[in-house]
Amino acid sequence: MSKDSQRRSDDGPLAVICGGGSLPLAVADAAQRGGRGVVLFPIRGWADPIPLARYRQHWMSFGNFGSFCRVARAEGCRDVVFIGSLKRPGILQLWPDLQTLRLLPKILRMFRGGDDHLLRGVASIFEDHGFRVLGAHEVAPEILMPEGPIGSVRPNSSQQADIEKGLALLDTISPFDVGQAVVVESGRVLAMEAAEGTDAMLLRVEQLRRNGHIEHAAVRGVLVKAVKRAQSRRLDLPSIGPQTIETVGRAGLGGIAATAGSAIIAQPERMGMAADREKVFVIGVRASSAEQ
Amino acid sequence: MSKDSQRRSDDGPLAVICGGGSLPLAVADAAQRGGRGVVLFPIRGWADPIPLARYRQHWMSFGNFGSFCRVARAEGCRDVVFIGSLKRPGILQLWPDLQTLRLLPKILRMFRGGDDHLLRGVASIFEDHGFRVLGAHEVAPEILMPEGPIGSVRPNSSQQADIEKGLALLDTISPFDVGQAVVVESGRVLAMEAAEGTDAMLLRVEQLRRNGHIEHAAVRGVLVKAVKRAQSRRLDLPSIGPQTIETVGRAGLGGIAATAGSAIIAQPERMGMAADREKVFVIGVRASSAEQ
Repeated sequence: MSKDSQRRSDDGPLAVICGGGSLPLAVADAAQRGGRGVVLFPIRGWADPIPLARYRQHWMSFGNFGSFCRVARAEGCRDVVFIGSLKRPGILQLWPDLQTLRLLPKILRMFRGGDDHLLRGVASIFEDHGFRVLGAHEVAPEILMPEGPIGSVRPNSSQQADIEKGLALLDTISPFDVGQAVVVESGRVLAMEAAEGTDAMLLRVEQLRRNGHIEHAAVRGVLVKAVKRAQSRRLDLPSIGPQTIETVGRAGLGGIAATAGSAIIAQPERMGMAADREKVFVIGVRASSAEQ
Repeated sequence: MSKDSQRRSDDGPLAVICGGGSLPLAVADAAQRGGRGVVLFPIRGWADPIPLARYRQHWMSFGNFGSFCRVARAEGCRDVVFIGSLKRPGILQLWPDLQTLRLLPKILRMFRGGDDHLLRGVASIFEDHGFRVLGAHEVAPEILMPEGPIGSVRPNSSQQADIEKGLALLDTISPFDVGQAVVVESGRVLAMEAAEGTDAMLLRVEQLRRNGHIEHAAVRGVLVKAVKRAQSRRLDLPSIGPQTIETVGRAGLGGIAATAGSAIIAQPERMGMAADREKVFVIGVRASSAEQ
C-alpha cells in the first residue's frame, strides 16, 4: 500500500452518494483500487441498482440529511463524494427529516438560482456538519477526460472551428450559471443547454432535423461540453458516456469535444469503440483561454 | 396627404415579401394608412392565405429571385420589406431560377452561420439588384413594442430581477448570432433559444414542468425577448403576438418582457386583452445598457 493511500485509508472509508448511471460504481471501483474503503449511499429514485455484495450500502431518501449524518459517522466516513446523474429535485420532492427541516430556510435560498448555486449550497451544508466534500476526480482521477482524441475519427477544420466557437460561447455564458453544452454546426449555434440537460438538447436537434427545421449540413456539427468557469469543480462535472455517443449520432452530429481534465468520461475504452462504431469523433480539448 | 407620405408614394408601391402569420397584413395595412401603395409577394409554403381583394399579390416560390425582380420592377416597386415568420429554409429547399443559380456561390456562403448572417446576405442580394430593403418598423412604426406595460398585470420585484438577468444574458450571447429569447425564473435560466425558435422553447419549458424536471417556483418566471446587438434591424426583429401569450401561460410563466422600440408586437390591443385573460404581464423594457 502506498504512503498516499495509507494516509487516505486513515481518513476512514469514502462515502459515495450515488445518483443514476454507471459513474458511481466506476468511481467507487477506482477509489477501492487506490486502497480506499468505500461505503455507498445510493439515493432512492435516482441511483441504479447496485450489486449488493460489492460494497456496503445504505439507501437514502432525498432529504434524509439527519440519517445520512448518523449512518456516515457510524461508518467512520469523513470524506464525501457526490456522483451520478441527478435530476434537479423540486423543493416539494424533499421529504425532510428533522435535521433537514432545521436547514430549510437555507435550502430554500439555495433553490433560487442555477444548478451550481444549488450544488455549492448542498456542499456547504455537508461541510458545516464536519464532512469534507471531494470531487469525484480527486478520488478517481482516471475518470477525467484526457487531452486529444479517443477512438480513430478526427474532427476536420470546419469542426475544429465549430469546437472553438462552442467553447467561446460556453465561456461567455459561464457567469450566468446556465448549461454546460452547446451544439454548433457550420458556424451556426443549433442548440444551447439550460434546464433540459444534454440528452434532451440532442434529442431536440434530432427532431429539428426530422421536421426539416434544420437541414443536414455538408459537414456534421459538434457537441461541445465544457466545465463552467465558476462551477464548483467538486460537483456536477460535465460527463459523457457511451450513450452520449449514440445520441450524438442520432442527432446527425459528427462528434463530441469535452474539456480535458475537467469533463468526466465514463469507461474510455468502451467510448473509443462506440465512437468508431458510430463514426463520430470524441476529443478532449483545452478550455477556452479565458477559462480557469 | 402629408409631405412625407407624398414623398413615399413617389417611390412607387412598397413590395411586402410575406412569411407566415398576421404580421404581413398588419404591416401592409399600416403602410397603406400612411398613404403608400402596397404590392404583396407571399412566399409559397410560408405565407398564410391573404384576402385577394385587399392588395395586388404575386405568390412566389422560395428561390425565384429572378421572377421577383421582373415582377417587382414591372409593378414599379423599389422598396422591399420582409415580414412574417419564416422557418429557416434548407439549401435543398431552394428551387432556384436562373438568376438565383448565378448567385448560388454567394448563397451557399450565407448558409454557413447564424440567422442574422443569412438575413444580411439576403438583404445584400436585393440591394445589389437595385432594391432598397426597409425594416417593417420603418414603414409601420406602430408595430413596435412601446415602453412600459401592456394590459393590467405588472411584474413583481423577483420578476424584474429575472428580466434584468435575461436581458444581460441575451446581450452577452449577442455576438454569437444565436437566439433572441430566454426564460428565467427565480434567478435560474430555464431555457435558451437557438435554432428551435421561441414557441418550441416555451413548449419545452411546459414539458419540463409536466415531467417534474422543473418544479413550479413560488414566483412564476419570465420570457425575455431582445433584439440582437449585431442584428440587422431591418429584418427578423423579435416579435410577440397573442399566441405567444397563450404559450407563455401554458409554460407556467408570469409574463413577457420585450425590448421597447425594437421588438414587434402584433395587434397591441388584442395583446392587452389576452394578457389580462391569461393573468400574465407584457412589458416593453429598455435593452441592456451595453446594447446598441
